[in-house]
Amino acid sequence: MTGTARYSRTRAIIERVEPEIDAGRFPIKRIEGEEVLVEADIFLDGHDQLRCLLLHRPAGAASWNEVEMTALGNDRWRAGFHVDAAGRHEYTVIAWADRFLTWRHDLARRKDADDIAVALLAGAALIGAAARRASGEAERRLKEFESALRSAATPDAGMAAAQDDSLAGLMAAWSERHFVSKYDRVLEVVVDPPRARFSAWYEIFPRSCRTDDAEHGTFAGVIAQLPQIARMGFDVLYFPPIHPIGRTFRKGPNNTLASGPDDPGSPWAIGAAEGGHFDIHPELGSAEDFRRLLAEARALGIEVALDIAFQCSPDHPYVSEHPEWFRHRPDGSIQYAENPPKKYQDIYPFDFETDAHEALWQELKAVVDHWIASGVRIFRVDNPHTKPFLFWEWLINAIKAEHPEVIFLAEAFTRPKVMHRLAKLGFSQSYTYFTWRNSKQELTEYFTELAQQRSREYLRPNLWPNTPDILPEFLQYGGRPAFMLRVALAATLGANYGIYGPAYELMEHEARDFGAEEYLDSEKFQVRFRDLQRPDSLRDYIARLNRIRRENAALQSDWNLHFHEVDNPLMLCYSKTAGDETVVMVANLDPHNVQAGWIELPLDELGLPEASSFQAHDLLSGARYLWQGKRNFVRLDPAASPVHILRLRRRLRSERDFDYFL
Amino acid sequence: MTGTARYSRTRAIIERVEPEIDAGRFPIKRIEGEEVLVEADIFLDGHDQLRCLLLHRPAGAASWNEVEMTALGNDRWRAGFHVDAAGRHEYTVIAWADRFLTWRHDLARRKDADDIAVALLAGAALIGAAARRASGEAERRLKEFESALRSAATPDAGMAAAQDDSLAGLMAAWSERHFVSKYDRVLEVVVDPPRARFSAWYEIFPRSCRTDDAEHGTFAGVIAQLPQIARMGFDVLYFPPIHPIGRTFRKGPNNTLASGPDDPGSPWAIGAAEGGHFDIHPELGSAEDFRRLLAEARALGIEVALDIAFQCSPDHPYVSEHPEWFRHRPDGSIQYAENPPKKYQDIYPFDFETDAHEALWQELKAVVDHWIASGVRIFRVDNPHTKPFLFWEWLINAIKAEHPEVIFLAEAFTRPKVMHRLAKLGFSQSYTYFTWRNSKQELTEYFTELAQQRSREYLRPNLWPNTPDILPEFLQYGGRPAFMLRVALAATLGANYGIYGPAYELMEHEARDFGAEEYLDSEKFQVRFRDLQRPDSLRDYIARLNRIRRENAALQSDWNLHFHEVDNPLMLCYSKTAGDETVVMVANLDPHNVQAGWIELPLDELGLPEASSFQAHDLLSGARYLWQGKRNFVRLDPAASPVHILRLRRRLRSERDFDYFL
Repeated sequence: MTGTARYSRTRAIIERVEPEIDAGRFPIKRIEGEEVLVEADIFLDGHDQLRCLLLHRPAGAASWNEVEMTALGNDRWRAGFHVDAAGRHEYTVIAWADRFLTWRHDLARRKDADDIAVALLAGAALIGAAARRASGEAERRLKEFESALRSAATPDAGMAAAQDDSLAGLMAAWSERHFVSKYDRVLEVVVDPPRARFSAWYEIFPRSCRTDDAEHGTFAGVIAQLPQIARMGFDVLYFPPIHPIGRTFRKGPNNTLASGPDDPGSPWAIGAAEGGHFDIHPELGSAEDFRRLLAEARALGIEVALDIAFQCSPDHPYVSEHPEWFRHRPDGSIQYAENPPKKYQDIYPFDFETDAHEALWQELKAVVDHWIASGVRIFRVDNPHTKPFLFWEWLINAIKAEHPEVIFLAEAFTRPKVMHRLAKLGFSQSYTYFTWRNSKQELTEYFTELAQQRSREYLRPNLWPNTPDILPEFLQYGGRPAFMLRVALAATLGANYGIYGPAYELMEHEARDFGAEEYLDSEKFQVRFRDLQRPDSLRDYIARLNRIRRENAALQSDWNLHFHEVDNPLMLCYSKTAGDETVVMVANLDPHNVQAGWIELPLDELGLPEASSFQAHDLLSGARYLWQGKRNFVRLDPAASPVHILRLRRRLRSERDFDYFL
Repeated sequence: MTGTARYSRTRAIIERVEPEIDAGRFPIKRIEGEEVLVEADIFLDGHDQLRCLLLHRPAGAASWNEVEMTALGNDRWRAGFHVDAAGRHEYTVIAWADRFLTWRHDLARRKDADDIAVALLAGAALIGAAARRASGEAERRLKEFESALRSAATPDAGMAAAQDDSLAGLMAAWSERHFVSKYDRVLEVVVDPPRARFSAWYEIFPRSCRTDDAEHGTFAGVIAQLPQIARMGFDVLYFPPIHPIGRTFRKGPNNTLASGPDDPGSPWAIGAAEGGHFDIHPELGSAEDFRRLLAEARALGIEVALDIAFQCSPDHPYVSEHPEWFRHRPDGSIQYAENPPKKYQDIYPFDFETDAHEALWQELKAVVDHWIASGVRIFRVDNPHTKPFLFWEWLINAIKAEHPEVIFLAEAFTRPKVMHRLAKLGFSQSYTYFTWRNSKQELTEYFTELAQQRSREYLRPNLWPNTPDILPEFLQYGGRPAFMLRVALAATLGANYGIYGPAYELMEHEARDFGAEEYLDSEKFQVRFRDLQRPDSLRDYIARLNRIRRENAALQSDWNLHFHEVDNPLMLCYSKTAGDETVVMVANLDPHNVQAGWIELPLDELGLPEASSFQAHDLLSGARYLWQGKRNFVRLDPAASPVHILRLRRRLRSERDFDYFL
């Protein structure tokens, strides 16, 4: 306590303010228009009455907005505010022993006539003091109340005046606040654009998008595919790195060490004579082509996301221009990426411990600034957990200070505390363990954690059933139903989700080796042209999922996720509710067999009637079921559809709805 | 993040250090010699190796002690230290990416001969750099290792040298620490004397202790009772306030508003013409008598505890000397204590909001200093929750800065968050809700919370089955077995406990009104002389309980409390373990009927054999039982003893023990 608050007369104690991340070290996250509900433990010595205010303001604003807090019981108080514009917002709590509220509270309990008389005089003094701080109409009315109390004909008359609501309002506005306690810290909110919370990502390799018989795709080829991607309902189009690719130690198909002259190499081996992180792989197109692609995408409601991979191929210009940005081996050669005994000789990692670190940080920020200037607003960051946390914290904060609408997605498949640190320090969204969560228990536990624990204040999951690096076993062996299931789970468990296409909708399922998760003939090492019009493509199914997401607000958030009982260990049941509507998902986790079971919904929590029927509208098939009671039977044939997505309405909204019951 | 750590090259992240209270706002508590086990989440970007150190030192010491931390898995690290002397101690954590440990870790995994050769050279360079920082023998040996690596005949020879433990030790001592991260905060420990954690309190009214036929007891009378109190095994003797008592509005017997000329009044109505908080009630004796009492008590191993009640009777000298220290009503009279409609006209509370608050705080501290100068080291504080928290925090910290051995007990029967705040801000021990926890579920839940939750780092419970204010219903109707039960529960659930005697051992059980918890003819308002030699007194039983506590280290702590299953809802089973010995308590919570049931002990957790027999030694009765297996039968007749206190030994210590099995 060392000297702070020495001899202070403040009495209110403010503790355990929530939401709060690591003692305020990190901000929470919201999107524009969202609410922040703040709670705190607040109490006084003795039995005087508290007045507690939640303060909030956009960061840097001159004055605070005040919101009256409400007592919840057990010394817990609550109030809320909304954040409007993208950027940073601040909040904290103040409280004090309020003399008017105390006086009024005690007065109501007094019984002795003399006591009451004395108390009315004390109250009049308080009101008079407030009147002297007021002016105009407020001053006049306060003086009226003061007189009323001073000259109350009977105790009851005085007590009645004391309880007047408008008096309370005037006193709240004008009375002095004595010895105000302020919470130890000011807490922050990072406010993002809506797409940070609700987005559907489609990952594609531009070099595999061609308009003709070229050997290599282009941005023009991507533009040609935009209408189909828009029809599928995606609103983020994400590319692996679009920069020139190194030739030294270039990998061949299926990650072979030797490559042929026509092998395109890995897009993550960035940098060649043609340029580095500021440049575009010449075969993809020009900077103008890229800007045109952004504009065409935006016209279809799609934002392009680029991949930030802060590493270099041996041919990157930085290697010769800034050798000091790399670690050197005793023999003078540059240290390639390695995790002994594994070597990645096509990659040179930056040495963030270099004495030239300031210049390095500034250069890397300049890369991001360059692409923002080109029109990009969303970045997926490759393996952020292999670069220092302080660097990312600085970079993301600096970028968002200038461009609060920019979104960063962390691709960090690593240990949980590392993943959480990245989310805390600023990543707007995070890849998760969803890709390896298949069973009922795994999914229930993991998503209950993500949806209900405090980490939801700073970690927004983005769920991917596949990536160019990961073809999960479940998809290798589950067939079409597995693909239908996993994208439906991702799209409904997660307000943010993505697929690596067209590999996904075309159900590519062959792994390079038995027991591995690498794709055979991975697009990471070779161009892959596909017949996107294949009749068995899942594109229409995915389009329907995305339309269901857009039409049901409940699916545009993650906090409202709740799991429900179903008496079949191979079936999963969960719901999301927003306002009047609940969307219930029932999934058959077995891609090979029909499964059936009884689901149990908490009707009262969902605001649904126990005694009468209610409608369950299957948004995938269009079918409408009449349900009644908590327990309802569900049967799912994976060959038809491994999931139901059912909208339950709490009440009839019109007679027309009533017709649907028949 | 605003500017801190801008461009910093530190990489290690240190989070969630425990124990930590409210982000380090408050210290944890220990007693002299206790251990502090510190854990933290610590991790790096990438896969370099961490070195993590726990730093600790007495507050104000010039340099830190360092303790190597051990990885527990999942990025959690741990180390411990012991605190020796009463006073404040500090601790924190540092960590960094250690180049030698990283090099050594990676080297062990390398397979390529050229790789290894290059790595050995890199290692030699690290060792050479350390050698240049070293001197003497260390420098010589480091240079030897450097040579060994530079000129290693084979890769294996080099790798073997690299794994040498003494090399690791030398490098730990001499290599440079690059870019050390330090935890955001320095955390504190308040180290108390042993009696803070383990004490048995006996509360007595000195005015009821007489050596002759006087109307009023004296300190001499207390001295005469010391041998008996010592025989009962108590080590803290606590008095209600010993100051002059006011006459105005003095309460009569049974809290009547009017008192007669011989009614002594409440000791908590402090202050009269004879003096105030610095003075002694003349009828009790002189300051010299008091010091003699302290010395005699100390000679018997007993510390005297005084009651700090910061309030005044209307006759207190402060009222006329410092009217500014009190709140005034509109009619000019001083505001007495009230909680409308209740009035306590014999008590004037201090107005801590007075403009003269600095002088008030200083005066109140001077009161405590005065009694410390008289030899008192333990204070029980009356209703601290009716005085500002910042005041107590300042007072306790200031007192303990000068006298680290002083102990403060908070008597705050109030809302949980208030009780916890008082413990956090410095009270060494706290009264609890034990007094109203009677059922199996209540006791199990409450004491599991106290023993296992984080609050145990700062809150030390002191359990009282009765106080002068509280005669619980259970004692009113439960008879002798109830008294035996409740003191046994207090003495074994709590390393700190107390009773208000002789009311307790003489089993006084009459309440003033039906349904109330006030004693009839309460000693608060009248002198009560008793026949302490009554043959049915529980003094020998209590003596036995206290001896059991002193002889069994397991009962001198609270953190080791665990509850166990017993298949009778009216029976409670719990244990405490220290080292080799476990003490198991089995209690019959029904004071009227025999109860029996099967207890279930987690034998492996207790280190007891499942297959063979083990001895359960009943420390109250002396009986020894032979038990085998997890489930053992227990029968308790409240008329005989409502509890068993059984010591289980993990292993035979000598053949003599073996005889006891027969």
